[in-house]
Amino acid sequence: MAGISAVTRGRIVFGGDYNPEQWPSEVWREDVELMRRAGVSLVTVGVFSWSRLEPTPGARDFGWLDEVLDLLHAGGIAVDLATPTASPPPWLGRRHPETLPVDADGRRLVYGSRNHFCPSSPVYRRHALSLVADLAQRYGDHPALAMWHVDNELCEVCHCDVSAAHFRHWLRSRYDDDLDALNEAWHTVFWSQRYSDWAEILPPRRAPYLVNPGQRLDFRRFCSAALLECFQAQRDVLRAATPDIPITTNFLGLDAPLDYRALAEREDVVSHDWYPDPTDPAAHELAGLSFDVMRSLAGGPWMVMEGATSAVNWRRRNGVKAPGRMRAESLHAVARGADAVCFFQWRASRAGAEKYHSAMVPHAGPDTRIFREVCELGVDLTRLAEVVGADVESQAALVLDWESWWAVGLDAHPTADVDVLGRLRAWHAALARLGVTADVVASDADFSGRRLVIVPNLYLVTDDAAANLTSFVRRGGTLVLGCFSGIVDEHDHIRLGGYPAPFRELLGLRIEEFDPLDDGESVRCSSALLGDFEARDWLDDLRVEGAEVVAEVAEGRRKGRPVVLRHGFGAGTAWYVATEPEPAAVGALARQVCAGAGVTGVLTGLPAGVTATRRGRVLFVINHGPDPASVELPAAGVDLLRGGRQAGRTELPGFGVLALVAE
Amino acid sequence: MAGISAVTRGRIVFGGDYNPEQWPSEVWREDVELMRRAGVSLVTVGVFSWSRLEPTPGARDFGWLDEVLDLLHAGGIAVDLATPTASPPPWLGRRHPETLPVDADGRRLVYGSRNHFCPSSPVYRRHALSLVADLAQRYGDHPALAMWHVDNELCEVCHCDVSAAHFRHWLRSRYDDDLDALNEAWHTVFWSQRYSDWAEILPPRRAPYLVNPGQRLDFRRFCSAALLECFQAQRDVLRAATPDIPITTNFLGLDAPLDYRALAEREDVVSHDWYPDPTDPAAHELAGLSFDVMRSLAGGPWMVMEGATSAVNWRRRNGVKAPGRMRAESLHAVARGADAVCFFQWRASRAGAEKYHSAMVPHAGPDTRIFREVCELGVDLTRLAEVVGADVESQAALVLDWESWWAVGLDAHPTADVDVLGRLRAWHAALARLGVTADVVASDADFSGRRLVIVPNLYLVTDDAAANLTSFVRRGGTLVLGCFSGIVDEHDHIRLGGYPAPFRELLGLRIEEFDPLDDGESVRCSSALLGDFEARDWLDDLRVEGAEVVAEVAEGRRKGRPVVLRHGFGAGTAWYVATEPEPAAVGALARQVCAGAGVTGVLTGLPAGVTATRRGRVLFVINHGPDPASVELPAAGVDLLRGGRQAGRTELPGFGVLALVAE
Amino acid sequence: MAGISAVTRGRIVFGGDYNPEQWPSEVWREDVELMRRAGVSLVTVGVFSWSRLEPTPGARDFGWLDEVLDLLHAGGIAVDLATPTASPPPWLGRRHPETLPVDADGRRLVYGSRNHFCPSSPVYRRHALSLVADLAQRYGDHPALAMWHVDNELCEVCHCDVSAAHFRHWLRSRYDDDLDALNEAWHTVFWSQRYSDWAEILPPRRAPYLVNPGQRLDFRRFCSAALLECFQAQRDVLRAATPDIPITTNFLGLDAPLDYRALAEREDVVSHDWYPDPTDPAAHELAGLSFDVMRSLAGGPWMVMEGATSAVNWRRRNGVKAPGRMRAESLHAVARGADAVCFFQWRASRAGAEKYHSAMVPHAGPDTRIFREVCELGVDLTRLAEVVGADVESQAALVLDWESWWAVGLDAHPTADVDVLGRLRAWHAALARLGVTADVVASDADFSGRRLVIVPNLYLVTDDAAANLTSFVRRGGTLVLGCFSGIVDEHDHIRLGGYPAPFRELLGLRIEEFDPLDDGESVRCSSALLGDFEARDWLDDLRVEGAEVVAEVAEGRRKGRPVVLRHGFGAGTAWYVATEPEPAAVGALARQVCAGAGVTGVLTGLPAGVTATRRGRVLFVINHGPDPASVELPAAGVDLLRGGRQAGRTELPGFGVLALVAE
Repeated sequence: MAGISAVTRGRIVFGGDYNPEQWPSEVWREDVELMRRAGVSLVTVGVFSWSRLEPTPGARDFGWLDEVLDLLHAGGIAVDLATPTASPPPWLGRRHPETLPVDADGRRLVYGSRNHFCPSSPVYRRHALSLVADLAQRYGDHPALAMWHVDNELCEVCHCDVSAAHFRHWLRSRYDDDLDALNEAWHTVFWSQRYSDWAEILPPRRAPYLVNPGQRLDFRRFCSAALLECFQAQRDVLRAATPDIPITTNFLGLDAPLDYRALAEREDVVSHDWYPDPTDPAAHELAGLSFDVMRSLAGGPWMVMEGATSAVNWRRRNGVKAPGRMRAESLHAVARGADAVCFFQWRASRAGAEKYHSAMVPHAGPDTRIFREVCELGVDLTRLAEVVGADVESQAALVLDWESWWAVGLDAHPTADVDVLGRLRAWHAALARLGVTADVVASDADFSGRRLVIVPNLYLVTDDAAANLTSFVRRGGTLVLGCFSGIVDEHDHIRLGGYPAPFRELLGLRIEEFDPLDDGESVRCSSALLGDFEARDWLDDLRVEGAEVVAEVAEGRRKGRPVVLRHGFGAGTAWYVATEPEPAAVGALARQVCAGAGVTGVLTGLPAGVTATRRGRVLFVINHGPDPASVELPAAGVDLLRGGRQAGRTELPGFGVLALVAE
Repeated sequence: MAGISAVTRGRIVFGGDYNPEQWPSEVWREDVELMRRAGVSLVTVGVFSWSRLEPTPGARDFGWLDEVLDLLHAGGIAVDLATPTASPPPWLGRRHPETLPVDADGRRLVYGSRNHFCPSSPVYRRHALSLVADLAQRYGDHPALAMWHVDNELCEVCHCDVSAAHFRHWLRSRYDDDLDALNEAWHTVFWSQRYSDWAEILPPRRAPYLVNPGQRLDFRRFCSAALLECFQAQRDVLRAATPDIPITTNFLGLDAPLDYRALAEREDVVSHDWYPDPTDPAAHELAGLSFDVMRSLAGGPWMVMEGATSAVNWRRRNGVKAPGRMRAESLHAVARGADAVCFFQWRASRAGAEKYHSAMVPHAGPDTRIFREVCELGVDLTRLAEVVGADVESQAALVLDWESWWAVGLDAHPTADVDVLGRLRAWHAALARLGVTADVVASDADFSGRRLVIVPNLYLVTDDAAANLTSFVRRGGTLVLGCFSGIVDEHDHIRLGGYPAPFRELLGLRIEEFDPLDDGESVRCSSALLGDFEARDWLDDLRVEGAEVVAEVAEGRRKGRPVVLRHGFGAGTAWYVATEPEPAAVGALARQVCAGAGVTGVLTGLPAGVTATRRGRVLFVINHGPDPASVELPAAGVDLLRGGRQAGRTELPGFGVLALVAE
Repeated sequence: MAGISAVTRGRIVFGGDYNPEQWPSEVWREDVELMRRAGVSLVTVGVFSWSRLEPTPGARDFGWLDEVLDLLHAGGIAVDLATPTASPPPWLGRRHPETLPVDADGRRLVYGSRNHFCPSSPVYRRHALSLVADLAQRYGDHPALAMWHVDNELCEVCHCDVSAAHFRHWLRSRYDDDLDALNEAWHTVFWSQRYSDWAEILPPRRAPYLVNPGQRLDFRRFCSAALLECFQAQRDVLRAATPDIPITTNFLGLDAPLDYRALAEREDVVSHDWYPDPTDPAAHELAGLSFDVMRSLAGGPWMVMEGATSAVNWRRRNGVKAPGRMRAESLHAVARGADAVCFFQWRASRAGAEKYHSAMVPHAGPDTRIFREVCELGVDLTRLAEVVGADVESQAALVLDWESWWAVGLDAHPTADVDVLGRLRAWHAALARLGVTADVVASDADFSGRRLVIVPNLYLVTDDAAANLTSFVRRGGTLVLGCFSGIVDEHDHIRLGGYPAPFRELLGLRIEEFDPLDDGESVRCSSALLGDFEARDWLDDLRVEGAEVVAEVAEGRRKGRPVVLRHGFGAGTAWYVATEPEPAAVGALARQVCAGAGVTGVLTGLPAGVTATRRGRVLFVINHGPDPASVELPAAGVDLLRGGRQAGRTELPGFGVLALVAE
């Protein structure tokens, strides 16, 4: 199977979504001309073109697409050809209302928007695959074709009766046709929920009170699996037709609906849609995390499939990107392993629901700040060709499991505010301040060769994963475990006997009771090692059973309560964080943990808002803020972007980027 | 056709909604006696009386109404007889559930409240018209009959299948049976929404994501048209029966659901329901705007059909009106052209959903502050008889188009907070502070004879309207255009090539990008002409192409960005306001604009909260606040209300009103 | 019929909900052993066991329950055996979807949670009663059986068509088959809502605007009655089988859905579920009120059926109870008449929706703070055996009517913020600060022998209740009436002629208009008797007709407006409070009122957060806060809990409790 290198071919891909069907054909020529001017090398075509390709049931209208692909090819622009299955034509919904999705309240959602399909519907799937097969046949040999783009941002969820039957089918498989096993897993003995027949089982629809958490967790698994099936069915058709063309589907940012790891395993190229908030001064933190997630999913280079050149259209207030910001964000992705930087979309729509989404060519045309910045970015990317295919140096690992993320998000917990992404972001940012880059891996990943593994939250843990983490420490690794981890097994059943049961020995402690703080409440903590800090959101009522107390509550009725602990275990060290420390304390902790684990970053003494990563032989230093910042370079180097030698204390302008290669 | 003069007959109408069916007949006699005491001249009868008039399908019970009309007539009180069609009886909903409305979520709403009908339902319409015809026949010759009141506050919206069919029928007519034209107008090529058959088209029901804006805009047009049909059908029956009796239907305040202009053209008398918030110290601003809208719709005198003597019942907390406030509000309407002041309702209900709505006769009876103030108002109105039928002097025009209002309210815009009404209010209030009164007109109105036209927002603009505004300036007029205007055509398609394309030449500028501020964010602006001010909500990233910069951003990364511009064009001047300035800056701008246009008010140097308008030969000066205020009168005059000569600096008590006629 | 004494048998019952079906049988033996260690005397078994007892339609699986009851009996632990009808098995919902409830939006709620039944469904009732009958037959003679526990926290509401038919049936009975009477009661002449046939009447489902308040009020009555029918049907089956076993059903805290008084009359034991918020420092105030409500409903001792040993699981953040807090809360209940202290639940669930609800045995097992506190409480309760069956001394009465509570909660009122419970709590707390304990009684209760009756709110008042309260004062009593009382009759019709019509003579005043304050607004009031204070939320515009003004508004446009009035009437005194005074002013008022009525508490000079009550010969003094507090004891006594003599100024530790018996 082909991978991303079949697309990059030695240069960083630059481009965007191209929707020529929205424009008269005279515009197409101008488009190709402007693309060439901007250095665009790849465009994604056809994402929402179903009703154009199949205007009436069974019809095929490929003429316009033939013309577009020929034109692009003639212009030297490769095509990421999309299957248009994320938005079926109105005729499908009207003729087959059962293909339309139903929400948990029983409301059938209609066409006239997008995403209006039931992933379990065999009728939908049949219509979709038929068109995909014809696309593959018609364009499989087209010289412009560089990649297949299956569907778009898979995220659909449905609660209809067809989905219910599919859910039951999936459950029978999961539980080996053993209804007792399901009843046990879902603990249906509670509240008299025992199923006497598979046919009784429904998706978690609206109910009078709290819905069974086992059912909800399995439904999330099922929804993910159903989308995976949709992807796989298309992938199989495409792969059979064009074994050498890599296949991707774009992720909807860093979100929970789909088990990204399972999907990444099944696609050839990992691609990512990322829309940071232009008004958030810390937007680069979540961005950096998401980029590292994508690189880890891909096991190497990946693509930014979508981003905005400036404003989006779906926030309440859609701020623009200040000059230089789009460039810094794009190069940040490259610094963390992206081999492609693409945007939604090439030319701003003149009508429809996304007409106020920015684009590479704005409504005001090419004589604009935005288009000029796009062209400059195109040049910058050509200067970075040497990093194509290169690895990013990482010094640590963060653990993220989608199933645990789903489980901790269920209701009726000690607090509704355990924020998995927020914790990952806090740790990722703290490491980044030290110049340390982290991979983001599964709890059952192979940790051999790693020194430092940080588990911000792992509410749900399997026996295997618990053993894996324990053995990592025993063999000499350093582990940090965040609170409310190791609490339940894969069925969301409590691991009994004092929390966190599978890690008690490893951590040298035992928790009797969770003690969440009120919203807005904080307690002062003291620590010789970390300095004093404020803790929020969570505390444990725990007993030390061997661990060393690194920080404790300094005041109030919980005075003396341990909040950070360290425990030598085997040849390694396990840290436990029994609260949500303020960011500065996470920073101090990260410093101690890295020091203890012998981990050092690629550049130290970084000011706030500046990150440094090494990819191949290039050291990327990026100023994510609008104000100038200065860094102390460890060695002299040549900047691939602006040219010239840099050494010692070096000033970066606002949104400035250095790509240094040692002299 | 008869107009409002057939009702006023030389005196300001005074009265209210009268619901005798809610009371035993012994109360009716007391009612007439109290009405006479209060000086009531007209009451609206029968608004929600369907189930009383037609207690079972097809039955007619007119006896009680005969008695009521006779009694009123004997008491010298005229009747505005209502068709009771805003609330069908339960039997209709039970026998014909398809007459009940369905919301966008597919929920069928039930009877037991009011407004529970589908405007598109032929069954509803047939039942309604049959009763209307019988009413017209029975009471067309009754001597008490002075006016017909069709339905009540038309505002119903329905998404049912009957409405869907009606919507399709309306669309076929709008698009000349050309489905391609609809697909083009709705830009259905986006997100694969192309319709292959008229039968596929639905109202904008709940969907997975953003719904097609063209579909939403046309649905708003359709809903307005469907209500208009309901009105017209009743009007035609009534007019055929009683060609000399004027016909009205009361507007639901200053709201967007219905194209008021289209309705006003089809009725004989414009009537208005207005419920200012008694706890809002600036309530008179929106009131004044709404009164000017009504006068402009009517092209002359209009009616206050409903108002509250004190509290309403539908706010979370329903504050009362301080003594004098109701009088000032009522005379404010007269000062802006009302020839009738009526209230909802005559006697406070003793039960039901509106029992806590204030009335002319409260639960506590006539020995109350409220009833005393009602009686005093009755006397005041008789003192103002000379203004009946007289014109209100206006010096400027504000532009308001319902279609643009609908369009700018759609979602996925640069900001969700473009507040058409708020901007109109700000400009109206700024003009009012200068003693300038504005008409509120359509963008394609005839502007000949006008000096100053202010367009606070005109997001959607037709080619004709753009030409009309441009030609107004070319011929010497002064135009002010607010931001996010001239952006789309009547299909909500972007007018390409730099915003606002149709006004770029007129304004001498070109906008590359919208740059909305965050919620709560403001930027300091400086201006030699206007003084420094804070700007909020919106900025444009624009290039000057000939215009003079009057104000610019004074700080931050947008420093130097123009926010107010002036451009000589032809014989006139065009101003552009690229932000939402704070109220004081709108005031300063209004002052400059008026000065430039040679517009002066009827009274200058007005303190805050005092307004002045001239109607006929009467100068109305109204203090809308509870504290005394003083004004400098330009000339001596006699106060029609309190008598006595007033000249020079004159003190108005809290809520005081002067109605001065020059000596 | 047997009462609570058949359960207590001379000792305070101690125990909790026991759900052995959730655990393997090997755990059961440990459970009994731990129960014995903790001093548990009664457990509630089977609350949600329907699907376990009847795994398939008609089947019966009693074997496990036999074993559990035998085991408990062998351990000396009595059983409160529950009917499991609050959560039908999935098979019932699947086979009979019409048994599932429908909300006001028409959404049918599904199984997979609990409470998913339509109380009006004959199919549900038939299945429920059949199982109840079999339970009664099988366990009626079991020696462990001490009490029947019908269903659980009855609160279900349904809007389906079956409920609609039942509602109509209930209405025909209420209105003696006279549809005109219903039309009159619901004032359907308003908004054309007149019913021409019983068949037209529906539950108050979603409608376009405000729904008829008479219909809403009767629907609340009906829902309460439907649940009462469900209770009674089960009770009758159980009583027939076991005439000597008392029957209860547990109330869902102090809430409005059900007329508790009507239910308390029909059960043998009043039992209460109470979950104070551990993070609320004033939680004991509402707790004390609720306990006094329960004692008053029971007319003597009552049960705490459920409480939490620490955190619950259903708040957004579920704080734990500080050490000692659970004990103080439990003994507070005993001090106010509880003869049983039980918890939900015995052993924390290992899975399901309530697994994070605290229990007597936590997930961490018996070696925990919580289990130790449980055991200590068990000992404390044995020390208080002498209060079993004893009366609590009360010096005053508070009035609470469920129908008025329902009516004042309807919409479209002068303010949406009349908080019946909040006012009761404020008065209860003010009395408690004076050492005065109040019964909570109906407005038509027998007040002979009482000195002081406080009516914080009685919006809806019947003629009989108005006469009862008036006659109480005439005969020498002291009455306090809160604002917005006496406004409507039982049909929610205004009592005309100046508010509050039935109490005008009694109070010596007449209200013209309600004058609610804005949210957050307050006015300063002055009073020689009470001191100055802030008033919020409500004012009346009233005229004094004989009353003495005790406090009046001190500022603003309402200056001089009376806010507290006192009126001698017959041999007694009536106070009227025309606003919501701040808590300190309620305290000052309570002091004056008590002094005037000759009421004194059991202990005076209580510091904040300390309450004192006398039960039998025991004086309970409880510190509800975490900090120490001291009280001046009136007489020396021996502490039943800790032993030792206490006299004079005595220190209580945080959450400390004294149970003193005079020497």
